[in-house]
Amino acid sequence: MSLLVIGTVAFDAIETPFGKTDKIVGGAATYISLAASYFAKDINLVSVVGDDFPEATLETLRQHHIDLEGLQIKAGEKSFFWSGRYHNDMNTRDTLATELNVLADFNPIVPEKAKSPEIVMLGNLTPSVQLGALKQLEGTAKLVVLDTMNFWMDIALPELKEVLQHVDVLTINDEEARQLSGEYSLVKAARAILGMGPKYLVIKKGEHGALLFNSNNQVFFAPALPLEEVFDPTGAGDSFAGGFTGYLAASGDISFDNMKRAIIYGSAMASFTVEKFGTERLMGLSQEAVNARVQEFVDLVQFDISLS
Amino acid sequence: MSLLVIGTVAFDAIETPFGKTDKIVGGAATYISLAASYFAKDINLVSVVGDDFPEATLETLRQHHIDLEGLQIKAGEKSFFWSGRYHNDMNTRDTLATELNVLADFNPIVPEKAKSPEIVMLGNLTPSVQLGALKQLEGTAKLVVLDTMNFWMDIALPELKEVLQHVDVLTINDEEARQLSGEYSLVKAARAILGMGPKYLVIKKGEHGALLFNSNNQVFFAPALPLEEVFDPTGAGDSFAGGFTGYLAASGDISFDNMKRAIIYGSAMASFTVEKFGTERLMGLSQEAVNARVQEFVDLVQFDISLS
Repeated sequence: MSLLVIGTVAFDAIETPFGKTDKIVGGAATYISLAASYFAKDINLVSVVGDDFPEATLETLRQHHIDLEGLQIKAGEKSFFWSGRYHNDMNTRDTLATELNVLADFNPIVPEKAKSPEIVMLGNLTPSVQLGALKQLEGTAKLVVLDTMNFWMDIALPELKEVLQHVDVLTINDEEARQLSGEYSLVKAARAILGMGPKYLVIKKGEHGALLFNSNNQVFFAPALPLEEVFDPTGAGDSFAGGFTGYLAASGDISFDNMKRAIIYGSAMASFTVEKFGTERLMGLSQEAVNARVQEFVDLVQFDISLS
Repeated sequence: MSLLVIGTVAFDAIETPFGKTDKIVGGAATYISLAASYFAKDINLVSVVGDDFPEATLETLRQHHIDLEGLQIKAGEKSFFWSGRYHNDMNTRDTLATELNVLADFNPIVPEKAKSPEIVMLGNLTPSVQLGALKQLEGTAKLVVLDTMNFWMDIALPELKEVLQHVDVLTINDEEARQLSGEYSLVKAARAILGMGPKYLVIKKGEHGALLFNSNNQVFFAPALPLEEVFDPTGAGDSFAGGFTGYLAASGDISFDNMKRAIIYGSAMASFTVEKFGTERLMGLSQEAVNARVQEFVDLVQFDISLS
């Protein structure tokens, strides 16, 4: 299946207890596309950068057979920039700087050849921009997946609720699920959110794994891999979304049972991302390394109980 | 295999956001024995109560075929009493009252017939009392499991480290693992703690599940069941330990693969306990209900990925 990825391509500057970076490449769509590229072979990326964005990175994306026709490059403008500092527990962070630059008036333009995708992955963006992108498509999508965050629940809840009407899968973290639903129990939160439009909900719990709910009251849990160190959590959720949608696209199967597998692949890609700063670890992984990582997840949770 | 349980039998008074109780039956050994009784058929309990402890509860324990010969009943004295209030998140609590009573000078006396157990479960107690009980045994135990808490790390760390030398499996929560090891990463914490004596470490993460580590660098993760409500978390960790050791005793197999199954059974028993106040839910469960709950865990985490 073809995969259309819409989201930011940007610069980040990151401080963690392990070190700090200058401006490095980041952005939701960057992580998503790179993670997906290990599975899906037909990926179109729609985003915007300034002419300060390095051609070498664009070339790397192309080498990961990510089609960049939908990537607008704005002459004389600067790319979106975010800077943040993680606390010692790596679960909380302070934003040090946000420079919207080209993102301030981003109007995604989906190329003709990318208007009939089978899977759409909408990375975190203004909900109205996400909806505007969806409206350019020709209604062929079998699965629309949307990632968002608490920021939009704070300042654009009506628009977010509108775009949720057009979405099959929503991916958010546990605190965001509680905020969106007003329920503390994640089971109750999931039921409330599945009443807002999506047929599936993925609740990302970081180091505590992820839950997949569907509207038939089925639930699946995928663990996070216990790691010696989380070096830089930036992009973990986006890498998860990329592995998830990339695996679904590659296997051409959007059943609940296949979504379980896809969540394991997404979790595996996230576990790579956090091992180094930025997108470094997602570039140039071998298929053997990906398979070995997925096998670690299998070994971590599989047990043999037969109750019949 | 025979199971020897040593720990408190006591009264609790509990407040949660859902309500509050008067004095109800609690105590680590009570939860452990009840949870284990759904699997193991040869259980000896060693503890102490005052003559204020209800005979009806003792009769219920006997009906769960828990042998009470090792339960001292001190005439004219009062049972251990703890009172606490849970916060809204159910993960933190304040202790409102602790009355040691008979526990102040508890000297466990293991009956002759219980001195050759194959599995020993030491519930949370003063480490020196745990060690004193172990020294009464005849060295037949194939597996000694110990539960403890941060309180003993604060005030009796040398004694705790001594008893750890005599233990095969340690069960503690994630914060306690960090405190005991001085490591934030649970992978590093596990390695440090497995250097203190135990061959296996279970890190209980409450609503986030449990991790089992062994000294061969193997790791297994069991989820917690996503519940609509956690009504009262008291005794969840003890019920987990009871299901874990009870299943191991019943199956007569202490291999790592069987410990994985035992952790699922322990998690299932904990998931029952938190549904009602105190030990209420652990009394009179049917085997069908236990099996159905275990099946929910199987359904929650099993997926089919074959990488060969």
